Amino acid sequence: MRIRVDWRQSVGLAGSVLQYLAIPLVFPLVLALYYREPIAPFVVAIAVTLVLGTAFDRFESDGEIGPREAFLMVSLSWALVALIGAIPFVVAGVGTIAHPINAAFEAMSGLTTTGATVLEDFSAHDRSILMWRQLIQWIGGLGILVLVTSILSQLSVGGAQLMETETQYDNVDKVTPHIQDTARLILKLYAGLTAVAIGVLYTLGLSGLAPNMDLYNAVAHAFTSVATAGFSPEPLSIEAFAPVVQWALMPFMFLGSTSFVLMYFVLRGDLNRLRESEEFRFYLGSVLVVAGLVLAVLAANGNPTGEGTHDLVRQSLFNVVSIITTTGYANADFTQWSAFAQYLLFLAMFLGGMAGSTTCSIKSLRWLVVFKAFRRDLFTSVHPGAVRPIRLGGTAIDEETIRDIYSYTLVAVLGVFLVSVFVAVDGARAGLDGFGAFDAVGAAASTFLNIGPAFGPAGPYGSYDVLPMSTKAAMVVWMLVGRIEIIPVIALLTTSFWRS
Amino acid sequence: MRIRVDWRQSVGLAGSVLQYLAIPLVFPLVLALYYREPIAPFVVAIAVTLVLGTAFDRFESDGEIGPREAFLMVSLSWALVALIGAIPFVVAGVGTIAHPINAAFEAMSGLTTTGATVLEDFSAHDRSILMWRQLIQWIGGLGILVLVTSILSQLSVGGAQLMETETQYDNVDKVTPHIQDTARLILKLYAGLTAVAIGVLYTLGLSGLAPNMDLYNAVAHAFTSVATAGFSPEPLSIEAFAPVVQWALMPFMFLGSTSFVLMYFVLRGDLNRLRESEEFRFYLGSVLVVAGLVLAVLAANGNPTGEGTHDLVRQSLFNVVSIITTTGYANADFTQWSAFAQYLLFLAMFLGGMAGSTTCSIKSLRWLVVFKAFRRDLFTSVHPGAVRPIRLGGTAIDEETIRDIYSYTLVAVLGVFLVSVFVAVDGARAGLDGFGAFDAVGAAASTFLNIGPAFGPAGPYGSYDVLPMSTKAAMVVWMLVGRIEIIPVIALLTTSFWRS
Ligand SMILES: [K+]
Ligand SMILES: [K+]
Repeated sequence: MRIRVDWRQSVGLAGSVLQYLAIPLVFPLVLALYYREPIAPFVVAIAVTLVLGTAFDRFESDGEIGPREAFLMVSLSWALVALIGAIPFVVAGVGTIAHPINAAFEAMSGLTTTGATVLEDFSAHDRSILMWRQLIQWIGGLGILVLVTSILSQLSVGGAQLMETETQYDNVDKVTPHIQDTARLILKLYAGLTAVAIGVLYTLGLSGLAPNMDLYNAVAHAFTSVATAGFSPEPLSIEAFAPVVQWALMPFMFLGSTSFVLMYFVLRGDLNRLRESEEFRFYLGSVLVVAGLVLAVLAANGNPTGEGTHDLVRQSLFNVVSIITTTGYANADFTQWSAFAQYLLFLAMFLGGMAGSTTCSIKSLRWLVVFKAFRRDLFTSVHPGAVRPIRLGGTAIDEETIRDIYSYTLVAVLGVFLVSVFVAVDGARAGLDGFGAFDAVGAAASTFLNIGPAFGPAGPYGSYDVLPMSTKAAMVVWMLVGRIEIIPVIALLTTSFWRS
Repeated sequence: MRIRVDWRQSVGLAGSVLQYLAIPLVFPLVLALYYREPIAPFVVAIAVTLVLGTAFDRFESDGEIGPREAFLMVSLSWALVALIGAIPFVVAGVGTIAHPINAAFEAMSGLTTTGATVLEDFSAHDRSILMWRQLIQWIGGLGILVLVTSILSQLSVGGAQLMETETQYDNVDKVTPHIQDTARLILKLYAGLTAVAIGVLYTLGLSGLAPNMDLYNAVAHAFTSVATAGFSPEPLSIEAFAPVVQWALMPFMFLGSTSFVLMYFVLRGDLNRLRESEEFRFYLGSVLVVAGLVLAVLAANGNPTGEGTHDLVRQSLFNVVSIITTTGYANADFTQWSAFAQYLLFLAMFLGGMAGSTTCSIKSLRWLVVFKAFRRDLFTSVHPGAVRPIRLGGTAIDEETIRDIYSYTLVAVLGVFLVSVFVAVDGARAGLDGFGAFDAVGAAASTFLNIGPAFGPAGPYGSYDVLPMSTKAAMVVWMLVGRIEIIPVIALLTTSFWRS
C-alpha cells in the first residue's frame, strides 16, 4: 500500500479528459457559424480546456491507479468540465446564465444530467448556446456510463461491484477485458441509441405527425433523452410538441436507464440474459406500478386538468417514466396535481433505473438487494442462527456488499434530508416567499438525486432562478456529489484519504 | 427447532399481562370515588381485563419461549392492553373519545407513549378519565422498559443486543441473571424516578413558585415525563404552568430517555460506566447541538414570539429535549416558528434517546453505530482489503449486528415515508383542507416514531381529531408497530413466521 495518494496521477488524467472536451465543443461552434451567431463563447472555452488540459496532462506518470487516485480524478474531472462548460454561458453574457454562479449551476446541472434550470427567457438565447446546453448533458451521460462500467464497478462504492458487467457470468466469453475496450463498446452503443432517437424524432417531424420537430429539436431531445438528462431548448419542454413525441421519447428514456451491458448482450441475441435479470424485472415493475398508482390517483381526483382518458394515461406514464429514469422532462405541470399525486412523484425520485446506465438516484439494483436483505433479516430474526445467503441471478451476494448497499442507501436518503435543511434555512434567511417545507425538500431531493424538476416554484415550468445565489452555489456542489455516487467525494474529505 | 410457532404460549403470556392490568386500573377507580365521578368506566374495564386475562391464561403451557413466541406475545399484549385501555373512554361516553376509533387512538397513543391526542374539549372530561389517560402512558413506559431490557436485548432486533445490559462488562458482577429480577430492578428504578418527579413538582406547587401545580397535576406530569410520553390533562400542556415547571421537567424527560441500566450503575456509584458510555455522550451531544441550532435560528429570525432571551433559551431547550427524548410536551406553539426551525424539529424526531430507556424513535445507539460504520466504510472504500472492526466502549461489534442496525435504521426511515403516503392520500380522499404535504409527513413521522405533536393542524395545540377516521385507525396500527421496534410486528406478516 502506498503511503500517500498519488494526486499527480489524478491531475494528469483529469488533464486528458479536458483535452478531449475540445472535441464536442466544436459542434456548437459549427452551429454558431451556421446560424451566424457569436463564436466567441465556444472559442474561449476550447482555448481554456486545451491550455488547462495540456498543463494538467504533464503531471501524468506511470504510477498505479488505486481507488484514491480514481476518486480524486473523477471528482476533479467532473468539477473542471462543469466549470469549463459554463464558460460559453458567461461569455455569451445573455440572460440569467450570464452570472457566473448561474452559469456554473446550469453547466453542472447539465453535466450531472440533472436538468434543473435557471433559465428564464428561452427566446433570448442563441441556438448554439441552447444546443451546447443539450450537448453537455449528452457528454455527462457518456461520462457516467464510462465511470460506472469501467471504474466504479471495480471498486466498492455502495455495492456497485454487483452491477451487470460483461464478465458477470462465467459461461459468457470475456468479450472486453480492458477498460478502454469497455469504454469504446459503451460509446458505440450510446452513440447508436442516440442516432436512432434522432432518426425517430426527425421522422415524426418530416411525416407531419409532429410538425415542429425539426432536425435541431430532434438532435436536442435525442441528446437529453438517452442521457436521462431532461434539458429542452423549448420553454414548454416536451409539451411544445404533439403528444406522439411523448410516446416516442418514452422508450429512449427507458433504455437510457437500462444497463448498457445488458442491452449489449440482448443486441447480440442473448435474450436469456434479459429473462434472467431480476434487476430489469424490478425496474420495469417499478415503472408500471408507480404509473398505475399515479393514474389511479389522477382519475380518482376527477381528472384535474380536464383531459380525456388517453391524455391521463399518457401523462401518468410519461411523468413516471421521466421521474424514475431520472430524466425530468415534463409534459404536464404536475405542480397542479393533487398533493398525493405529487407526493408519489416525490417518492419515485428515490428509485432510479438500473445500475450501469445513465440513470441517477439510488437505482433499482440497490433497492432490490435492500428488499431481499430485509426479507432475509426478518427470517433470521425469528429463526436465529439460520444461514440464508441472498442471491441475485442465482449467485450468493457476500455480506459485506449487502452492508455496503444498506449503508449507501441510508446515506443517500439522509443526504437528501441534510441538503433539504440547507435549502430551507437558506430560503428562510433570504426571505423567500411561497417556498414551503415540501418545496424545499423537493428541490433538494431533485438536485441531490439528479432528477431535475421539483415542486412549487421549482416545478417543471418554473425555474431554480428564484432560489438565493447561495442555495444555487451549494446545489452545484451536491449535484456533483450525488452524480458520482457520493462516496468518491466524501472520501476526499476524510483525513485517512490524504494520510496513511 | 420447532416446526410451528407455539401460539398457545404467546396467548397464555398475554393473558397474564391482562390480569396484571387490573392493578393500575384501580387507581382511577379510587380517584373517581374520591371525586364522586362515575366509576362504571373503570369497573367495566377491570371486569373485561380479568375475564379475558383468565381465559387466555389457560393456554399457557410449559413449552419454550422462542423469538416467534416472544414477538407474537408482545404484539398481542400491546394491542389488547390498548383496546382494554380504551374501554373507560367509550363507557364514559364524553367528547371526541366516546367514538370507539378515537378511543382506540387515544389509548394506543397513550400506551405507546406517543402522546398524540384527539381530545378537543379538555374541560368536558372527568378528572379520573384524564388521569387514566396519564397512567396508561406510565404503564406503556414501564412495559417498553421491561420489553427492551429483558426480551429484545436477547433477540436480534435492529441491533438491540448492543444496548447496555447489566452483563455487558465481564468485570461487573452479574447482578441480576434472570428476566424477572431485571424487570423488578427496572420497576423499582422507574417508580423511584416517578416518585422524585412527583416530589419536585408538588414542592414547586406548595412553595408558590408554580401555584397551580397541585398534587393531581404533579402526579399526572410525573407519569408522562419519566415515560417520555407527553400527555397532559391541561389543554395548554406545560404552558399552563410557570416557566420553572419547564426547567423542572427537563431532567426527568432526559433521564426517562437515558439507559436505565446505566442509571442503575451510576446510582450504585459506578461513575466510570457513565464516563465510558459513548452512547450517553452522543445522546447528550445531540440534545445540546440541536437546541443550539434551534436557538440560533429563532434568534436570527428576530424572535418571532417577541419574548426575552431567557424565554428563547428555555423554549429552544425545552422543545428540543421534548422532541429528542420523544416526550412531545410543548411550551410554545412551534407551528408559529419559521419553516426552518420547524424543519429542524422534524429532523430531530428521527433521533431519539438511549436504548434501554422509555424513549422511542431510532435511538442514539443506532445512530452512533451508523455514523461509525459509515466512517469505516469510507475508509475501506479507499483502502480496500483493510480490516477495521467498529468498537463501542472498547469492544468490537460483529458485522452482522452492524448490518442489522443499518437495516433497521433504513426501514424506520422508509417506514415513515410509506405511512406518510397513506396520511397524504387519505387526507386528499377525505377532502381535508389546510393539511399540506409537510403536515402529512410530520403527522406520520410523529405517530410512527411515537413523538406526539406534529405540525400544522396536528401541532402541539392542535388535535389529530381533524384527520379522517381511516387515518386515525391506521395510526393506531403503526403507533404499535413503531413502538415495539417494527420487526416483531412485520415478522408476523411473513409466511416463514407461521410455517417451517
Ligand atoms: K435528470
Ligand atoms: K411521546
